[in-house]
Amino acid sequence: MVKVVVSGALGRMGTNIGRLVDEAPDMELVGGIDVKEGTLFEKEVVPAARIDEFLKQTRPDVLIDFTVAAAAVENIKAAARNNVGLVVGTTGFSPEQRETIRVAVEGNVPAVISSNFSIGVNIFWKLVREAARQLGDYDIEVTEAHHRYKKDAPSGTAKTILEILDQELGDREKVYGRVGETERKNEIGMHVIRGGDIVGDHSVLFAGNFECIEVSHRAYDRAVFARGAVRAARWVSGREPRIYSMQEVLEL
Amino acid sequence: MVKVVVSGALGRMGTNIGRLVDEAPDMELVGGIDVKEGTLFEKEVVPAARIDEFLKQTRPDVLIDFTVAAAAVENIKAAARNNVGLVVGTTGFSPEQRETIRVAVEGNVPAVISSNFSIGVNIFWKLVREAARQLGDYDIEVTEAHHRYKKDAPSGTAKTILEILDQELGDREKVYGRVGETERKNEIGMHVIRGGDIVGDHSVLFAGNFECIEVSHRAYDRAVFARGAVRAARWVSGREPRIYSMQEVLEL
Amino acid sequence: MVKVVVSGALGRMGTNIGRLVDEAPDMELVGGIDVKEGTLFEKEVVPAARIDEFLKQTRPDVLIDFTVAAAAVENIKAAARNNVGLVVGTTGFSPEQRETIRVAVEGNVPAVISSNFSIGVNIFWKLVREAARQLGDYDIEVTEAHHRYKKDAPSGTAKTILEILDQELGDREKVYGRVGETERKNEIGMHVIRGGDIVGDHSVLFAGNFECIEVSHRAYDRAVFARGAVRAARWVSGREPRIYSMQEVLEL
Amino acid sequence: MVKVVVSGALGRMGTNIGRLVDEAPDMELVGGIDVKEGTLFEKEVVPAARIDEFLKQTRPDVLIDFTVAAAAVENIKAAARNNVGLVVGTTGFSPEQRETIRVAVEGNVPAVISSNFSIGVNIFWKLVREAARQLGDYDIEVTEAHHRYKKDAPSGTAKTILEILDQELGDREKVYGRVGETERKNEIGMHVIRGGDIVGDHSVLFAGNFECIEVSHRAYDRAVFARGAVRAARWVSGREPRIYSMQEVLEL
Repeated sequence: MVKVVVSGALGRMGTNIGRLVDEAPDMELVGGIDVKEGTLFEKEVVPAARIDEFLKQTRPDVLIDFTVAAAAVENIKAAARNNVGLVVGTTGFSPEQRETIRVAVEGNVPAVISSNFSIGVNIFWKLVREAARQLGDYDIEVTEAHHRYKKDAPSGTAKTILEILDQELGDREKVYGRVGETERKNEIGMHVIRGGDIVGDHSVLFAGNFECIEVSHRAYDRAVFARGAVRAARWVSGREPRIYSMQEVLEL
Repeated sequence: MVKVVVSGALGRMGTNIGRLVDEAPDMELVGGIDVKEGTLFEKEVVPAARIDEFLKQTRPDVLIDFTVAAAAVENIKAAARNNVGLVVGTTGFSPEQRETIRVAVEGNVPAVISSNFSIGVNIFWKLVREAARQLGDYDIEVTEAHHRYKKDAPSGTAKTILEILDQELGDREKVYGRVGETERKNEIGMHVIRGGDIVGDHSVLFAGNFECIEVSHRAYDRAVFARGAVRAARWVSGREPRIYSMQEVLEL
Repeated sequence: MVKVVVSGALGRMGTNIGRLVDEAPDMELVGGIDVKEGTLFEKEVVPAARIDEFLKQTRPDVLIDFTVAAAAVENIKAAARNNVGLVVGTTGFSPEQRETIRVAVEGNVPAVISSNFSIGVNIFWKLVREAARQLGDYDIEVTEAHHRYKKDAPSGTAKTILEILDQELGDREKVYGRVGETERKNEIGMHVIRGGDIVGDHSVLFAGNFECIEVSHRAYDRAVFARGAVRAARWVSGREPRIYSMQEVLEL
Repeated sequence: MVKVVVSGALGRMGTNIGRLVDEAPDMELVGGIDVKEGTLFEKEVVPAARIDEFLKQTRPDVLIDFTVAAAAVENIKAAARNNVGLVVGTTGFSPEQRETIRVAVEGNVPAVISSNFSIGVNIFWKLVREAARQLGDYDIEVTEAHHRYKKDAPSGTAKTILEILDQELGDREKVYGRVGETERKNEIGMHVIRGGDIVGDHSVLFAGNFECIEVSHRAYDRAVFARGAVRAARWVSGREPRIYSMQEVLEL
């Protein structure tokens, strides 16, 4: 039985994850963390200020965190010092925050950290990497689309796409919009669409030589992210204490 | 027999148009204008500095102009004072230039001026207008894609889309790229893709209410623009002296 | 207070609609009909065999029916003879069944009948009609995509698209697949994609003249259909006894 | 200097290829074959009945064949017995014809045979193979679109996609259209769009798990096929006598 605490418990992702944990026969939801008190499927949700006390009291195997960068760093440090494994889907960390997380986690607890827990997105990233290897001399443009309320741009998933392209093709300039007189150089265009209730689309266009190749991913339901996070929680429990990628969970 | 002079005669569009005029049984190519001397299907091409003299000498019915904004204004004024009808596909005019053109043309010569002469694009614009009327409370995002060498962003065709949306929905802010922390307001996102040899794609996305509607146009060959311009030249010859839209030529 | 009975009450759409009715402050869910007994948000669901008795007992203003063609015809007849208004989202009726429904409804009860209750789809149909009027000489291909479990092909929504095209362009042959030696004539290609959990995509492609225009709709959540049906139920109650389209409800 | 004869010399692809060969500084166009006599860039085109005599007379290094299946088999046999290398872009061979070709070529002359010579399509096929390996439990639907005059369905390129999927996933049933009552099984849907002047689009959709991944290719100009064929001709000349794929030419 994998015991799980969810942080960001009262948010949309937290509720989705809480439900899946609650329904899983091999998992136990033992509580939640959020900015304020509440309940999650009849389990107690405590304010983040009381996280240490709560982790000591509930003794979970894994903390699943879908919050915002600053809060997540604190939650991760608390989990690490209380010997609780981690699944982190929060995005938008600065390089300094990434380093803080690394120091807190390495050698202390196992942690799966990913900007996207959907199985499909992880395979999609692999295809993007393969395409970049083959099509390095094509012009590359990345487009992502999300619902009107999404606050960060581009999405964490798109940032991972840009990292993959950099790894395969060297550091190319990223252009986040074009207006007025422009001249395309050896750059990557990154386009961020926001509107309606779009769950999450990502596409990478390779254009050249009178032809275009496009690799794209579309999510229809946030449940795919929650499901992947729960799968990661099940997988991470009891692993060696280091940071893992979702690619490792999925053995891609 | 409609007698035609082409300005921008040595460029890609000029050559395309020259060929179509040359092949048309009811038209006669009488020469070209460009920055330097040359020939266009065995007809003389003279430098723009000699345009007045050349128009007096060749007495064309129509001047077809696909150049750049500053040059086009001079060519238009020359055509107007020599009583030559106009087909203008040049884009990127400032409001002042538009006014200069209006003054030169109105009451003097008939002129078809459009940011896009393809029949399909003109119908597409109509559909965009209709969609905007129905879907004003949806979030709207416009995307256009062109080849890597295109210099202006967004395209003239996309600017016309934005004008249509403004006419139907009032002046909404245009956002030409999103990066960092963002919050979607009652704005229109405008995305400009540049890469490879893409001839010209335009799409308008209306997102809301857990659904999306999209209206899009794709050109496969620049010939569609040349063909529309030649059709406009045939139509404009002998009309009342004022500015016409391509919608009027096509009776849309 | 609009009193509503839902038929197909235990199915996916029935549950969605039941929830919306239950939550609406100006509506009252009074019960459900299905093939077997059950409950819908604590209201009784009775077998279809007992529909007359149940309608007499509960005296609803509107019956909302999302079932299958044969069942729907019986439910509609029962509603008509018990003076209950109708909202019918069931698809797949034969011409004979349509006629039976018409006879049952006209002059007896008001009924909104539509193959798709989403607001977006109804506007999309309008745009398709407008496009067809303008682009009648282009080649037209319709594509729809739904989840792997959808049983009928093409979707009711796509059939309505084909009807709209026929109304505007005359009866063109429909081709439901191409393999081997083929020759495109003045036909309409209809392509049915089935896979995964796709909620519902529809697109109409107009190809010709070295350009393509496409009008498309994508649904992200079945809730859009339920919401439109509930809106129709609110609207239909108390109207003149005849068949209405969703376009009339939406005043498109 | 690579000496080239083009068969199908008077057709659209033949003319394109002839021009590229004629312009290439390291190649020499020595003539053409077609059903009737003619000229190709001032070189003689002879009827196919005289192919042996013509090959003996002109002594080309490579015959490039873009014709139809029956004619291509004869041309290939003639090239093989006259010791002329081959580049074959003709599609639609039966298994028997493939075997005849294999017997004629193996051990006699080097031959590059491919259903598509574009560099992009060959990389696209590689990505499709990689995607199929990762996404075998998703539902797969293939769509291709070509101009209204294309006679065979699906395209040779799409057939190669289906072969790749079969190689990776085992023989799944192919469904070439859906209408009426349908039930999706472990099948592959193959959709053939025909309209306008579409040069060639191919897309493979993997749908499942509330998400979709799509890999697609679009050609903007037939020149990409001609260019790849000429590149193959340059490559094949002087190789060991066996059949090569375009993937080998491109070292993918």
